[in-house]
Amino acid sequence: MSVKNILFLVLLLFIPVSLAAQFLKWGELIVFITAALAILPLAAWMGTATEEIAVVVGPTLGGLLNATFGNATELIIAIIALKAGLVDVVKASITGSIIGNLLLVMGLSMFLGGLRYKEQTFQPIVARVNASSMNLAVIAILLPTAMNVTSVGISQQTVENFSLAVAIVLIVVYALTLLFSMKTHAYLYEVGLVESEEISHTKPNIWLWAGVLLACTLLVALESEMLVDSLEVATSQLGLTALFTGVILVPIVGNAAEHATAVTVAMKDKMDLSVSVAVGSSMQIALFVAPVLVIAGRVFGQPMDLNFNPFELVAVTVSVLIANSISSDGKSNWLEGTLLLAAYTVLGFAFYFHPVIDGMG
Amino acid sequence: MSVKNILFLVLLLFIPVSLAAQFLKWGELIVFITAALAILPLAAWMGTATEEIAVVVGPTLGGLLNATFGNATELIIAIIALKAGLVDVVKASITGSIIGNLLLVMGLSMFLGGLRYKEQTFQPIVARVNASSMNLAVIAILLPTAMNVTSVGISQQTVENFSLAVAIVLIVVYALTLLFSMKTHAYLYEVGLVESEEISHTKPNIWLWAGVLLACTLLVALESEMLVDSLEVATSQLGLTALFTGVILVPIVGNAAEHATAVTVAMKDKMDLSVSVAVGSSMQIALFVAPVLVIAGRVFGQPMDLNFNPFELVAVTVSVLIANSISSDGKSNWLEGTLLLAAYTVLGFAFYFHPVIDGMG
Amino acid sequence: MSVKNILFLVLLLFIPVSLAAQFLKWGELIVFITAALAILPLAAWMGTATEEIAVVVGPTLGGLLNATFGNATELIIAIIALKAGLVDVVKASITGSIIGNLLLVMGLSMFLGGLRYKEQTFQPIVARVNASSMNLAVIAILLPTAMNVTSVGISQQTVENFSLAVAIVLIVVYALTLLFSMKTHAYLYEVGLVESEEISHTKPNIWLWAGVLLACTLLVALESEMLVDSLEVATSQLGLTALFTGVILVPIVGNAAEHATAVTVAMKDKMDLSVSVAVGSSMQIALFVAPVLVIAGRVFGQPMDLNFNPFELVAVTVSVLIANSISSDGKSNWLEGTLLLAAYTVLGFAFYFHPVIDGMG
Repeated sequence: MSVKNILFLVLLLFIPVSLAAQFLKWGELIVFITAALAILPLAAWMGTATEEIAVVVGPTLGGLLNATFGNATELIIAIIALKAGLVDVVKASITGSIIGNLLLVMGLSMFLGGLRYKEQTFQPIVARVNASSMNLAVIAILLPTAMNVTSVGISQQTVENFSLAVAIVLIVVYALTLLFSMKTHAYLYEVGLVESEEISHTKPNIWLWAGVLLACTLLVALESEMLVDSLEVATSQLGLTALFTGVILVPIVGNAAEHATAVTVAMKDKMDLSVSVAVGSSMQIALFVAPVLVIAGRVFGQPMDLNFNPFELVAVTVSVLIANSISSDGKSNWLEGTLLLAAYTVLGFAFYFHPVIDGMG
Repeated sequence: MSVKNILFLVLLLFIPVSLAAQFLKWGELIVFITAALAILPLAAWMGTATEEIAVVVGPTLGGLLNATFGNATELIIAIIALKAGLVDVVKASITGSIIGNLLLVMGLSMFLGGLRYKEQTFQPIVARVNASSMNLAVIAILLPTAMNVTSVGISQQTVENFSLAVAIVLIVVYALTLLFSMKTHAYLYEVGLVESEEISHTKPNIWLWAGVLLACTLLVALESEMLVDSLEVATSQLGLTALFTGVILVPIVGNAAEHATAVTVAMKDKMDLSVSVAVGSSMQIALFVAPVLVIAGRVFGQPMDLNFNPFELVAVTVSVLIANSISSDGKSNWLEGTLLLAAYTVLGFAFYFHPVIDGMG
Repeated sequence: MSVKNILFLVLLLFIPVSLAAQFLKWGELIVFITAALAILPLAAWMGTATEEIAVVVGPTLGGLLNATFGNATELIIAIIALKAGLVDVVKASITGSIIGNLLLVMGLSMFLGGLRYKEQTFQPIVARVNASSMNLAVIAILLPTAMNVTSVGISQQTVENFSLAVAIVLIVVYALTLLFSMKTHAYLYEVGLVESEEISHTKPNIWLWAGVLLACTLLVALESEMLVDSLEVATSQLGLTALFTGVILVPIVGNAAEHATAVTVAMKDKMDLSVSVAVGSSMQIALFVAPVLVIAGRVFGQPMDLNFNPFELVAVTVSVLIANSISSDGKSNWLEGTLLLAAYTVLGFAFYFHPVIDGMG
């Protein structure tokens, strides 16, 4: 049994522990931490189940399934937080996921990969296509903030209407991106999928995996409920603001599966896939998760718009620029990984020092 | 007779119709629309006439002629609007032309070209040289706005003086760019000029074409006068602000000829020329049209400066970043076109939703 | 005796002249100008002495010596100005040095080199590595400003704490950059060091050069003291603000040695080295000089933070974008040099026109 599997089993123990913490009232801080740890193996299994089912149903439907369930954990946490009225945390977790994927995930991949290999290369072709989609999507979700910052006396209604319009355009673009990557230009994306060694060689039992997917989804939801309910008390006990929690803590839990994949494959010198996961995940947050949350906010009657804290706008812009600057040459080494991690650290300090303002925390 | 020529003849009919609308007082809205439509074939003929004369007078003088008359329609509309005191519309049309060329024109070219050809390529060399000049020029014309936004209590006089200084530097740079592209490094620009099939094979009659150019220029001026006079009433009847009119509507009329050229050649797989037209036109707006208008404003006693609405600064910056991101690899496909068009759509929504502020509209 | 040596000897005469001006009380303006001129040959000799010693002590220790003493003149002027309480001038000189290296030095190199050679090329590899480090560092030192601009009611204490955190992260990154360039990936940096023709062929006398280095360092300090003491009166006599002085004048004196080197080697068609000096120098300012000054400010009890004038943020961002746009293709010509110089000119105007605000000047 590999180290990875042992770690998984240990993390699975946090499911009953978190339930015990909740019902025996061990305090919000313990519930928060154990629920966060319990989500990690569930998210990983959801990923595996999705891939196994994708093998059976074929590339097109499988790709669609991957694209939709790839961010399932984040979406579940965000929707539960949105229902609970933690709109600021949800918004912060969107920008935090983008920053985390571009700086923390890509940085850790390049750093750890770079310690093993002097120089790693990746096809810039896919990075380019994804990067352009990602750049557009990120810029689009930041425009309502930019409009609010540069105008005086803009009404909340206008910001919400504009956010909805942006959300609809982005979902259309997302659909077209899937069409592009799965139909018209699929050949560009054949960059070595997750290796067969990690997937069972026999034809997977689709009903078994569908059951796993369903069970994990329910458990993630359940644990997310506990995570969200305990969030405010727990983080204020730790002296953290809602902004810091949303931008730094929540995305680490929600994106843990992508983090693990990207770093693992980077250490096997498959930088194509590693960069693809980090950039692609950022792209999906901006093109799919954020628009869905705006529309969900309308449905739930929670005023979810895309009007972020102005410093989040700065942080995301900076992350995109640095990530573009480092990934555009199709090469990486440990120093480039360090630079991304340093940028993440500095932004982390910024959000930690950032004063609490109206409605945040 | 080709479809294109029939369309031209139909559009020419709007010249008498617009005159009738003006003198028979059919209302500002009809004058506005018919004058706008009447300008389109005139602008196209001005382009053809300029090219025919350029063939006769040789590459150097011809290039200079093209560079000067390439934006003649826009310049005429802008100068008439400036004289009429519509300074905000003129300023908005400058940023709108840049945004429109980079996103709408390039986007439509890459999208329609991409529907026919799986992947289109273009030499990034010229794109690079032009992109750098364009980047510089665009940044320079935005600096007065940036200075105004980042300072407290800056005087109108300072903004105007700084705008004039910027304008003078840019006109010098424009002259040097012409020297570079026509004299010292002309070989870099041999990217397939407009095809001979579109130009008559016999030596053109220079006096005929000079007459056409003169007649068209006079008619464009005349129609522009009607367009500008009816603009305020017509657009307020449509419920549009001066900002939206200037950024979205006016540039579509003023740049129609470039739009048609860029899209037509893209569909013939001449992406070199198509990208060159879109980027080059943006560059000329920033390096030549904007500075000329600042100086003309001084001459007319209209306080024309380069202090744009702060959201225009955001929109132009965003357009330049996206266009650079998409054009830098020298390749295009339908998805990249779609991304540019999506960016244009989102910005269009932003300007539509943008609240009316001091003096705008 | 070469023209260069004669110029040096003439400039050396300003050492006694400046001392005379100081003690015979010829007025602050004359002291300011003569002290500035006297620093130039001293800075050049410090550079030569450092390189000669580096030859003897070997590449690793020599590289470290170069990295530390490369910005010695700037550091000495800045520390003396900081002690004298001219915090705003010191901060402005940091951004001014970055802008000056990227636009003025690189621009002059590409322009003058481009007049001799139609097209010059340089390995973008090193430019890439350095550019990424530089981009990160520059963004990091601007984050406290961005945080201040985008927040309401942020305390001075928070800004200072965040600035210190940024400074510490940057110094760690600087150390790692040295490790990368001198140990793990040294082979990437073998881009033709300063030619042996310029360094004596016999083994240099280390004690002689150590003495020269010590003497020059002391004299630079001495002259810097006079420069700083006369700065406020002299510049206000010239009608200049502290912002303009700090951003434009001080960096020209402090970076004169780098300017001379970069331009000289560009004219010998060694663009690799020229670009390397300009980008590397900017990188060192942001990664090393700025953090050291923040920490020195703490030690001296001067509230030195990284909260710049918001327009400085704009100016540095703009410079970095233009420099990246122009240097990323590994080619240069006279027009690209002109574009960089035009950008510098426009920013110079901006700082000249920029109104004096709280505490500045």
